[in-house]
Amino acid sequence: MKRKKVTRVLLRKRTRLDHRLHRWLLCHAHHMITGSKIRKADHPIEKLLLDRWSPRAMSGEEISQEELMRLFEAARWAPSSFNTQQWRALYARRGTEHWQTFFDLLVDANKTWAKNAAVLVVFISRKLFDHNNEPSVTHSYDCGAAWENFALQGFHQRLVVHGMEGFDYERARKELRIPDEFQVEAMAAVGKPGPRELLPEKLQARESPNDRRKVSESVFEGPFKPK
Amino acid sequence: MKRKKVTRVLLRKRTRLDHRLHRWLLCHAHHMITGSKIRKADHPIEKLLLDRWSPRAMSGEEISQEELMRLFEAARWAPSSFNTQQWRALYARRGTEHWQTFFDLLVDANKTWAKNAAVLVVFISRKLFDHNNEPSVTHSYDCGAAWENFALQGFHQRLVVHGMEGFDYERARKELRIPDEFQVEAMAAVGKPGPRELLPEKLQARESPNDRRKVSESVFEGPFKPK
Repeated sequence: MKRKKVTRVLLRKRTRLDHRLHRWLLCHAHHMITGSKIRKADHPIEKLLLDRWSPRAMSGEEISQEELMRLFEAARWAPSSFNTQQWRALYARRGTEHWQTFFDLLVDANKTWAKNAAVLVVFISRKLFDHNNEPSVTHSYDCGAAWENFALQGFHQRLVVHGMEGFDYERARKELRIPDEFQVEAMAAVGKPGPRELLPEKLQARESPNDRRKVSESVFEGPFKPK
Repeated sequence: MKRKKVTRVLLRKRTRLDHRLHRWLLCHAHHMITGSKIRKADHPIEKLLLDRWSPRAMSGEEISQEELMRLFEAARWAPSSFNTQQWRALYARRGTEHWQTFFDLLVDANKTWAKNAAVLVVFISRKLFDHNNEPSVTHSYDCGAAWENFALQGFHQRLVVHGMEGFDYERARKELRIPDEFQVEAMAAVGKPGPRELLPEKLQARESPNDRRKVSESVFEGPFKPK
């Protein structure tokens, strides 16, 4: 609220501010920029699906446990083969005993910005069905569906949610005592949005919703068609 | 619109209809039942994420190409490692030359209801990154994220979208000429909702949004905790 007021005052004086700073205030002070401001969908889709993107700039502020649990709640309702929900998640909040263990898993390139996250998450999936211990074909795929719900809910709450493959998978298994029957899928950083100026310069330039291949390059009627 | 009018007339005469039929009309004639009518989220989440579920009852009606492309468009905007979008999808519309090939992949239990689908989809993912041909760790997970966007968008359009693992994976690879560097992930049936009475009796009883494990059974602070 306090920040909101400061922004309002600054915006009133915008004749004295240069255009770039004004744009920054619009984008970052109240809320994050949304994908649909930049991206163009070729076919109309639900706004949240186009708006969600993966910022890196976080303020370092905490998020409440209740805020965090809403993201996991969203993951909970994703579909899965036989509704077996083979996904699991391990997490650490900054400032707690587990933070350093999770943070140290990251590659250096991710540490430079993920240090301002409020929470780090490791998504894992059980490779065997719980009900009969037979191999599950879709455990990773279903875990990814749960992850997407998590990311969408986080964006809906105006949080930064950024998925990461850049971490030491074997170390994660060892340090977090993940049994062999589980697959380590990916990590995610969650936090409050912050000004992009907090990022290393190289990442500042990339701090914007990115584009995608055309649907026609990913989707084919009938059998597979090589490029 | 025509159907809407019929329903309105029937509802006006509802004193003459028995209670069950009235309930059926409310649930199925205008629109599908939504998850949030039955499910209870322990933490508040975006309505669409709770509403989405996986019905099986479809009317057999076609859906337009434009309607279908909106689902793939939603998949398009899912996140992926390095934004490499390793997911692909193959599809067949009922009444076209490819339908039988896709339909014959299904196990009998899925054939009994998926026969009324308008479209069958096979989701696959490339196991190597496109930009450097190095192995991708998250190709299935990222494909699952795209699939969830597809399912959410379909539900938003009031279509039935139902994921399936019950099909012949090896046959899919062969018949659809899917190269070894791609993994066959899962199938999905898409169609217009229909009355549950079209389903085999056993499935009619299950035609309702299902429940989930508690978040606390899937999510752990710190290292993995065995049950």
